[in-house]
Amino acid sequence: MWAVRSRLLQPGEDLSGWVSEALESSGRRLRNGDVLVVAHKVVSLAEGRVVALSDVNPSEQALQLARQTGKDPRLVELVLRESVEVVRVRPGLLITRHRLGFVCANGGVDRSNAGPEQAVLLPEDPDASARRLRDALHRRFGVEVGVVVADTHGRAHREGAVGVCVGLAGVAPLADHRGRRDLYGYVLTSSVEAVADELAAAATLLMGQADEARPLVVVRGWPAVGDGQARQLVRPRERDLFS
Amino acid sequence: MWAVRSRLLQPGEDLSGWVSEALESSGRRLRNGDVLVVAHKVVSLAEGRVVALSDVNPSEQALQLARQTGKDPRLVELVLRESVEVVRVRPGLLITRHRLGFVCANGGVDRSNAGPEQAVLLPEDPDASARRLRDALHRRFGVEVGVVVADTHGRAHREGAVGVCVGLAGVAPLADHRGRRDLYGYVLTSSVEAVADELAAAATLLMGQADEARPLVVVRGWPAVGDGQARQLVRPRERDLFS
Repeated sequence: MWAVRSRLLQPGEDLSGWVSEALESSGRRLRNGDVLVVAHKVVSLAEGRVVALSDVNPSEQALQLARQTGKDPRLVELVLRESVEVVRVRPGLLITRHRLGFVCANGGVDRSNAGPEQAVLLPEDPDASARRLRDALHRRFGVEVGVVVADTHGRAHREGAVGVCVGLAGVAPLADHRGRRDLYGYVLTSSVEAVADELAAAATLLMGQADEARPLVVVRGWPAVGDGQARQLVRPRERDLFS
Repeated sequence: MWAVRSRLLQPGEDLSGWVSEALESSGRRLRNGDVLVVAHKVVSLAEGRVVALSDVNPSEQALQLARQTGKDPRLVELVLRESVEVVRVRPGLLITRHRLGFVCANGGVDRSNAGPEQAVLLPEDPDASARRLRDALHRRFGVEVGVVVADTHGRAHREGAVGVCVGLAGVAPLADHRGRRDLYGYVLTSSVEAVADELAAAATLLMGQADEARPLVVVRGWPAVGDGQARQLVRPRERDLFS
């Protein structure tokens, strides 16, 4: 697993061209079965999912939630537009259910690495973004790779955020070990592993968060097999015990 | 990052001796700054944290929870002994707060890879287990490494389980990016990254779950720095919004 050195992506720039250039400059070729993990931030920037806060008029609900949380009302307005449900509100904290199903802070809206007074939204359809990138890499380099679009989310019961998968293509999000036998023949009954989240978490270790951000990571040696959608990683509302 | 081939650990066997033997047989030497991720199962087996279900007498509360969940009453009894609070109960599901603070299914009690009619409890003090292993590896090989004891936990809002850190030594559990500036000079305000959990998640990708279990993984290139305790990864009860 290694981070690919890349230049800063220009907003609106073609993502696959930028990725391809970085990969070619790195001198290391992709192989079949590699997984390319991309920070959602560059996907969003390429797709123009950037909003100038000065263009946002907060609604009454946004103004009220801004008072409760101490957050910028314009940011809160964007969070509400991206979300289908407000889950928890505390000073300094706004947890919502994003329209894609993810329960996370600030509806996936992020102010870091976007430019002053700018906010970055999640890609419109991160699975489709991953699919386009995978297909473009196949056309350009002739390889079948998996693509994972990564964000960092907090957790309900643990401190700190970890990398999670918000979009994918060419890799199965979940590995189902149920029904397999362990070393002693005991049949495993509850072992479904969220491998796409683990891939995102692993890559996030190398991505960094501040001015040395490295938004492209290649994972080799964990073969990308299967396919699916990041939505499979979302626990459906009716099975969610904690919202 | 690679999985170290190892023979089956015998219950009660010295952990550091078993780890050292596996590392020596692998022909690859540990280096300063490597992180060794160990599945909690082998730590528990080495420390004798195995209980024969036939020796367990379920309490009245265990019998009742067993009826509600459909689980073996003897297993439920062990879960209750390991836990300080029952958090959620549903058919097929028993989520508790473990005495070490972790909110997880079945109080960390596990029936897989333990032998028939056996259950494995978490180590008594997984941070201390990690510390002893780190110190033993230093004495034996003269290297300073980080040690992470890994388990897999489900998540409140996402499907599937991922590797998490339940014990550590020689590595800081959290990386605090707050106050650092991003690419555009914006000061990051909420970026605390649970790197020990990400290390555990990365390693879990290589560990496997069933009969090909590989409980030892070396992470190289992500320097183990700092120190701390796995308890720092637990959100304190009073700040927990979802229990």
